[in-house]
Amino acid sequence: MTNFSGQTSGKWEEIASSKRLALAEQIPLEYRIPQQLFPPKDQLDVTTFPRESGWFDRKELEITESSATQILKKIASKSWSSEEVTRAFCKRAAAAQQLTNCLTDFFPTEAISIAKSLDEHLQNTGKLVGPLHGLPISLKDNFNIIGKDSTVGFASLVDQPATYNATLVEILERLGAVRYCKTNVPTAMMIAESVNNVFGRTLNPRNRKLTSGGSSGGESALITFGGSVLGVGTDIGGSLRIPAACTGIFTLRPSFGRFTTQNCRSGLAGQEAVMSVNGPMAKSLEDITFYSKAVIDAQPWLVDPKCLPIPWRPAERNAKLKIAVLWHDGVVHPTPPVARALNETVEKLQVAGHEIVGAWDPVQHPKAVDILARMFVADGGKSVRRLLASTDEPWRPEMKGYSEATELGTYDMWQLHQERSELQKKYQEQWMSYDSLDAILAPTCPYATVAHGQFDYVGYTGVYNVVDYSAVSFPSGVTVDKEKDRPGNHKPLSDICRTVHAKYDPEEIDGMPVSLQLVAKRLEEEKVLAMTETVLQALYPSQSRP
Amino acid sequence: MTNFSGQTSGKWEEIASSKRLALAEQIPLEYRIPQQLFPPKDQLDVTTFPRESGWFDRKELEITESSATQILKKIASKSWSSEEVTRAFCKRAAAAQQLTNCLTDFFPTEAISIAKSLDEHLQNTGKLVGPLHGLPISLKDNFNIIGKDSTVGFASLVDQPATYNATLVEILERLGAVRYCKTNVPTAMMIAESVNNVFGRTLNPRNRKLTSGGSSGGESALITFGGSVLGVGTDIGGSLRIPAACTGIFTLRPSFGRFTTQNCRSGLAGQEAVMSVNGPMAKSLEDITFYSKAVIDAQPWLVDPKCLPIPWRPAERNAKLKIAVLWHDGVVHPTPPVARALNETVEKLQVAGHEIVGAWDPVQHPKAVDILARMFVADGGKSVRRLLASTDEPWRPEMKGYSEATELGTYDMWQLHQERSELQKKYQEQWMSYDSLDAILAPTCPYATVAHGQFDYVGYTGVYNVVDYSAVSFPSGVTVDKEKDRPGNHKPLSDICRTVHAKYDPEEIDGMPVSLQLVAKRLEEEKVLAMTETVLQALYPSQSRP
Repeated sequence: MTNFSGQTSGKWEEIASSKRLALAEQIPLEYRIPQQLFPPKDQLDVTTFPRESGWFDRKELEITESSATQILKKIASKSWSSEEVTRAFCKRAAAAQQLTNCLTDFFPTEAISIAKSLDEHLQNTGKLVGPLHGLPISLKDNFNIIGKDSTVGFASLVDQPATYNATLVEILERLGAVRYCKTNVPTAMMIAESVNNVFGRTLNPRNRKLTSGGSSGGESALITFGGSVLGVGTDIGGSLRIPAACTGIFTLRPSFGRFTTQNCRSGLAGQEAVMSVNGPMAKSLEDITFYSKAVIDAQPWLVDPKCLPIPWRPAERNAKLKIAVLWHDGVVHPTPPVARALNETVEKLQVAGHEIVGAWDPVQHPKAVDILARMFVADGGKSVRRLLASTDEPWRPEMKGYSEATELGTYDMWQLHQERSELQKKYQEQWMSYDSLDAILAPTCPYATVAHGQFDYVGYTGVYNVVDYSAVSFPSGVTVDKEKDRPGNHKPLSDICRTVHAKYDPEEIDGMPVSLQLVAKRLEEEKVLAMTETVLQALYPSQSRP
Repeated sequence: MTNFSGQTSGKWEEIASSKRLALAEQIPLEYRIPQQLFPPKDQLDVTTFPRESGWFDRKELEITESSATQILKKIASKSWSSEEVTRAFCKRAAAAQQLTNCLTDFFPTEAISIAKSLDEHLQNTGKLVGPLHGLPISLKDNFNIIGKDSTVGFASLVDQPATYNATLVEILERLGAVRYCKTNVPTAMMIAESVNNVFGRTLNPRNRKLTSGGSSGGESALITFGGSVLGVGTDIGGSLRIPAACTGIFTLRPSFGRFTTQNCRSGLAGQEAVMSVNGPMAKSLEDITFYSKAVIDAQPWLVDPKCLPIPWRPAERNAKLKIAVLWHDGVVHPTPPVARALNETVEKLQVAGHEIVGAWDPVQHPKAVDILARMFVADGGKSVRRLLASTDEPWRPEMKGYSEATELGTYDMWQLHQERSELQKKYQEQWMSYDSLDAILAPTCPYATVAHGQFDYVGYTGVYNVVDYSAVSFPSGVTVDKEKDRPGNHKPLSDICRTVHAKYDPEEIDGMPVSLQLVAKRLEEEKVLAMTETVLQALYPSQSRP
């Protein structure tokens, strides 16, 4: 294939179509859905495909519908081989790609070879390589892997294979994980849906008219479809939590410094006023916690100077939590299903004996949203513009804010840092003004999810990037009900609130899961995970726990 | 007094002279050195004054020559009152000010009143307020205290009293400390000597022709004179370690996030590419460690969102340390006394059974020095220029780099961040390439100290700001010997190396102490303090330990 280097100009469409073709060819014939089994284009929910198509055998279904912790136990006890686990996920990931366009790279042969060598190691030594021995883990596109592209959606970065691994990739390898694919993102990872000019758009497998969110929306689609049991995404304004919420899965947005981000591709390289973080995405909270402990136990601070030498601190389970509720953020009201999920969750928490201390005053939220937006475009969009320019790739319409931005000088940037620090201080003061507040319960988004192109507001997630708090997005158990969730007589908080609610259509999203966030203070990852477990116990009967 | 607000223009000299007069008037008559006891202007060493003048009684001398930990024990056991301790230090600080010009603010009446109330508390309850109960602690000028100026040397900031306390000031108060003065700094705290247009120049009490260093050089002069037993300074390029070295006292430069810097005045407000930190300065390592544990035990992360929730982690004392030696940094050779101190220290460490693993390759150092300089002036000197402009205050000649700088745009700043992160990564990789390296032993400065206006190079300290490592500067026990430390046949490493060595004059600094740095990795404060204790045991006979 031609080497489309960053210097090549005017060729973005050709580059993109070659890349898509190459990706399609990465799917081995055995993993291509037989023509006669292909669901019709207008079939919205494709999560039923694996069970209903007959294309997957019982064991493939059993494997790909187990949790990561279950799979790891089966591999450790030699009930399952890593090879058969990996083959099952490769097949289901290939199906996910064909039905939702969620991948940017796929390397099953390499994955199966890694899995085989892990199986041999276990066979020969009786020992596991590490706590993730034999488990296939999917990775967002921006995790560099030697020899593979990390385009983050730019044509100019196609066929520029990485010459080093992301530090997290090396840690996961050391822990025994098997890598097999990379997942789709929006351009520069700076759009709340997963769409770019190279790979196009990822669809929500629960309803293909809807978005799986962004920027880790390839991951959320893949996991929701069952093509991955555990994936790693990133979050600088909501990019883990939004896609988790749009599909109804779990994620942890850690504070900066717990998991390593070293040697990853960034959409806005060198931007540090708000730090991108990465974290796990999965269908079960147990898997999220298991991954988090495994990565922190690997002591990432020994290999990444930006990581904090904070070991895993088991959190004491609080029988009774003290929770404030963010009913709205002062900018955009949650749409009806999200408001209902918040109400029902609060009721269940109270029934379970937890203390709801009242409404969290959103006084800092509008300012946080404003600051975040200014920090993202502080380079006047230059970082993105340069990556577009070399192949004449056009700006995506979602990135208007970047294309029209004016660059700040460093002096003005320093003033902006001060505004942000002041806000961080005030947010913490507000938290500490309660007597021992444990958490804030908040919407993850104002939406359950939306039709493609309709995701207009990221303030509910972005505020916690600005203050760098730890947060879990979890499915509340509530699903959208077009009858219950009719639009009411809405008094908008702002223009963007009016827009969000004008576009709200319960018919379109009927049946979609609604997620909420549980937010703890900075660097309280262990605590927020333990608290989410407590919340889930209040929300779900034990036999139906996700 | 007229309110010289920031809006007043063209009046810097008048403002400055009024401020100096006001400061002189803050010294009560009883603390003014009697005319007949005043040492002659040309007396270089004034550290002998308290003992030789006869102006201090035996108890005042005993108090002000005890360590902080000794004083705290005496107060706790009611052998001494906080009031008498505070009065003794106020008197000696007043003398220090009159002989070395080390203060920017002095409030003995307020201090004595605080001390009295602490004494009463102890008397009435039998309990200490906290671990620093009754101890006077001096503070660098930039720690905001309600009602007091923090000018950091700018005329435009005179008579702009703070409306809030620095968070550290509040913590120290909570721990029982007594505040009684603030200490001098250079303009914007960005010069390696303590000189500015408002308060003028601080002199080294060991030799008043020499600098006490900067930017925490008011502290180092005050402590060395005995006017404070424990002070707090700050460090963004060496501002704790340089003055500690110039006077032969101890300091800890912590990594960012251990001690709170919230609500302090900054010279370059909002600058975050390299973070300013603060730390203790004292004549004994024990006092440095005691302070560090007390402040961290106060859980500053509960009140400052930038602080890390890392509790005090007692370090295991390693019987045998593994140390690499930075013989030179590839830019400037240490001057002869520093090279000799390094040699003698290495020999003593080897005799004591520690392992010297060889020379630390300074391959990253020249780049670090270059990056640091570019980060400091990235705003094109605007922050400083604005603070000068409102009173027509002229640029100090030491700040030429700022006055001539070109502002970077945010895009270029983001590229600089990446250069810095890459260097941080390489520095850690180099460290980890050793098998369990404990520390680097390095010069604190290329000098013991220098005559006023001659401090030209901060690369030995600055590199550890760039990588944010923990470091202790300690007196090596070696003092300059004009016979032993004659300039040799020097082959310079660079132009600045040539300049440094051309100005080197052993006669001028004869007898001055030589300090070195022990450097541990990021956030290893407990470890570097414990290792320094081990090093001191190898360097000093037990009866003469500082």
